[in-house]
Amino acid sequence: MDNNAVKQWIHSQETQAVRLLQKLVQEKSVRGNESKAQAVIVEKCRELGMELDIWEVEKKEIANHPFFRCDREEFQGNPNVVGVIKGKGGGRSIILNGHIDVVPEGDESAWNIDPYSGEYLNGKVFGRGSTDMKGGTVALLLAVEALRENGIELKGDIIFQSVIEEESGGTGTLAALVRGYTADAAIIPEPTNLKMFPKQQGSMWFRLSIKGKQAHGGTRYEGVNAIEKAVIVLKALQELEQKRNEKVADPLYRSIPIPFPINVGKIESGKWPSSVPDLAVVEGRIGVGPDETMEEVGKQLESCLKKLSDYDNWFEHHPVLLEWFGGRWQPGSLEPDHPFLDVMEDAYQDVFGSDPVIEASPWGTDGGILSKGGNIPVIVFGPGTTEAAHDANEYIEVPKILLAAEVIASALIKWCEVSDAIDQ
Amino acid sequence: MDNNAVKQWIHSQETQAVRLLQKLVQEKSVRGNESKAQAVIVEKCRELGMELDIWEVEKKEIANHPFFRCDREEFQGNPNVVGVIKGKGGGRSIILNGHIDVVPEGDESAWNIDPYSGEYLNGKVFGRGSTDMKGGTVALLLAVEALRENGIELKGDIIFQSVIEEESGGTGTLAALVRGYTADAAIIPEPTNLKMFPKQQGSMWFRLSIKGKQAHGGTRYEGVNAIEKAVIVLKALQELEQKRNEKVADPLYRSIPIPFPINVGKIESGKWPSSVPDLAVVEGRIGVGPDETMEEVGKQLESCLKKLSDYDNWFEHHPVLLEWFGGRWQPGSLEPDHPFLDVMEDAYQDVFGSDPVIEASPWGTDGGILSKGGNIPVIVFGPGTTEAAHDANEYIEVPKILLAAEVIASALIKWCEVSDAIDQ
Repeated sequence: MDNNAVKQWIHSQETQAVRLLQKLVQEKSVRGNESKAQAVIVEKCRELGMELDIWEVEKKEIANHPFFRCDREEFQGNPNVVGVIKGKGGGRSIILNGHIDVVPEGDESAWNIDPYSGEYLNGKVFGRGSTDMKGGTVALLLAVEALRENGIELKGDIIFQSVIEEESGGTGTLAALVRGYTADAAIIPEPTNLKMFPKQQGSMWFRLSIKGKQAHGGTRYEGVNAIEKAVIVLKALQELEQKRNEKVADPLYRSIPIPFPINVGKIESGKWPSSVPDLAVVEGRIGVGPDETMEEVGKQLESCLKKLSDYDNWFEHHPVLLEWFGGRWQPGSLEPDHPFLDVMEDAYQDVFGSDPVIEASPWGTDGGILSKGGNIPVIVFGPGTTEAAHDANEYIEVPKILLAAEVIASALIKWCEVSDAIDQ
Repeated sequence: MDNNAVKQWIHSQETQAVRLLQKLVQEKSVRGNESKAQAVIVEKCRELGMELDIWEVEKKEIANHPFFRCDREEFQGNPNVVGVIKGKGGGRSIILNGHIDVVPEGDESAWNIDPYSGEYLNGKVFGRGSTDMKGGTVALLLAVEALRENGIELKGDIIFQSVIEEESGGTGTLAALVRGYTADAAIIPEPTNLKMFPKQQGSMWFRLSIKGKQAHGGTRYEGVNAIEKAVIVLKALQELEQKRNEKVADPLYRSIPIPFPINVGKIESGKWPSSVPDLAVVEGRIGVGPDETMEEVGKQLESCLKKLSDYDNWFEHHPVLLEWFGGRWQPGSLEPDHPFLDVMEDAYQDVFGSDPVIEASPWGTDGGILSKGGNIPVIVFGPGTTEAAHDANEYIEVPKILLAAEVIASALIKWCEVSDAIDQ
């Protein structure tokens, strides 16, 4: 077994990696439309000799799971894909998990190129999903292919997963877990810009309905403007965020300005410029620390809203309605001395000759489902950057895909161990 | 001529008034759908022996008028109606102006009845437009009919107008003015609750676009939340409102908490709970005092927005975009010693045996177009209340329609004078 040969082989695969990533980006796998991109994955998995499991998620099979959170009715035609390479036995197994779904392209006029062109320019592939996270998935497949091409067989199993629904709360990964897929560790190559995230922030979406009292704008003093009341609620949310973040002592969050942000992402109120609006609806997400539970964080927000009448008497008789809706991402946490973190750090050292940056992710991933739901140690590590994700002109640097693949290949060798059978 | 007979006749017309008002309310004359309600008006005008002028507004004939402000493309099939009763000569003329258009019913679930039922219950007619202002129009027609039924002919002309588009900025009244209809005075029976408004507040709609910078909600500190910046803008608007209203010395505004309100009627920002929104759009109306011009008030708002960078440096490089859009209502003002006000006060005395409450209207009416555009003295006086207007379960008290009709009939006699010819 020649570690250097593996690295060199990966290094030679730039053209092939770009081509695979372009094919994946060109299939617009927004929610409900994942099948064609999954077909590209399946073709590649077949080429790699994986045992394939392709199935449509059945809501009834997972609906009772405490982590289930999904408003999608229909999964038909858009399967989850798992490809397994059985080890020779006696080694630790690993899950390599990537999500195939992408968020919508947003305002198309903000893009300089067709969001689904997969254009390759100056070492970057552009397009929705390139960084989040089809580039990461290409890195996973490249790592697996590198072992195969170099005749390396492992003792432990590799369980490659290409899942749906990550962007909407993780139903794809949850379905794979409930179907029985587990392992001794997992890598999720979300865009960490080659940093290692042994901890991931979770998050929950909330909706607040804030009441006012209608009136004609010319006699606005006869009404109560729901927008003015919403401003008070926003201030209370800021104070809650501050209070929650003052307490964070985890050194992994040392360099993060606000470890667990409360983000107000949406407000809507009123229909007519000269009427006093009687309802304001605010939607946002609240970050959940790796060592917190969703329940306790939910209670903190509830209690913050209950105290609003201390600021303004109006809320005593017009309490804000709180709804938990839509997406919900479990936080994840790996103890700092876990052997899988050691292995990942060593693998990084092999490739870069230096220690990786270890941080905690500022966003939720499917890692929380694997770690909290399946007790699987998870590290999030991948090419691509948070800044590029979800934005117009999303892109990924191809050299970083190759570097990530090198680290992952090295980690596979260290974690799952090379089978003696191979040295014949 | 027997004033008492006129009053008694009007008093006997409750059933007929209710029936006419119901027919008008049952025709849903929202914008672009005014024709059937106008047909009810036309039928009544014919009955009253008026010379009718029924015409479709031609945009090109009024588009150059400085008061023109209309985003409606098409007036075909939804005419303006003017009915004239020529006087015998030698008397002062009067315009009786009512608008036929109504605002939409809004959230239908907030109504206890069908908004277009015209249900009559406990002395009230319910439905959209009952108070604003089909009830007022019924009062006008009843006053005219009372004179006719009692054989009273006037020296001055009566010009009855049933116009479209008041709720959207006054194109109907403007078109009648441009067509040549003028008079020595005008009554507009908007819902003043039988108070007299010799001055009317004008208003203008504005739209503010406030910029932010997109980011993922989990790293919200990398973006700039447009909603947070909007909160600063709202505060500046409140301060401008306070500054403008501190200066108001007009005794007619003595009992009004905020004479010229700035109302924020709408805000929209963001599309995704876990993204930092990069744009917030705020819409509102700014009141224009009877003795102010739209231009000077517009400049005050512009200058307020320019000073935002004093509060927050962000606005220096991301100025708020101000658009004047949609509705615009000219303010109106009648000098306190104008003989038409004396006549209206006397007429009120005749009916109630006491002085009317004289105030300034908190909202714009078509009165501004007549007074500022046509130099016509205007008093706004009618049944119905501001509180009921534009709201769910809009209603009007029928006895007040009859009382308003009595005052208006008396004013017609005093202002236009009874022709000697009648005493034969």
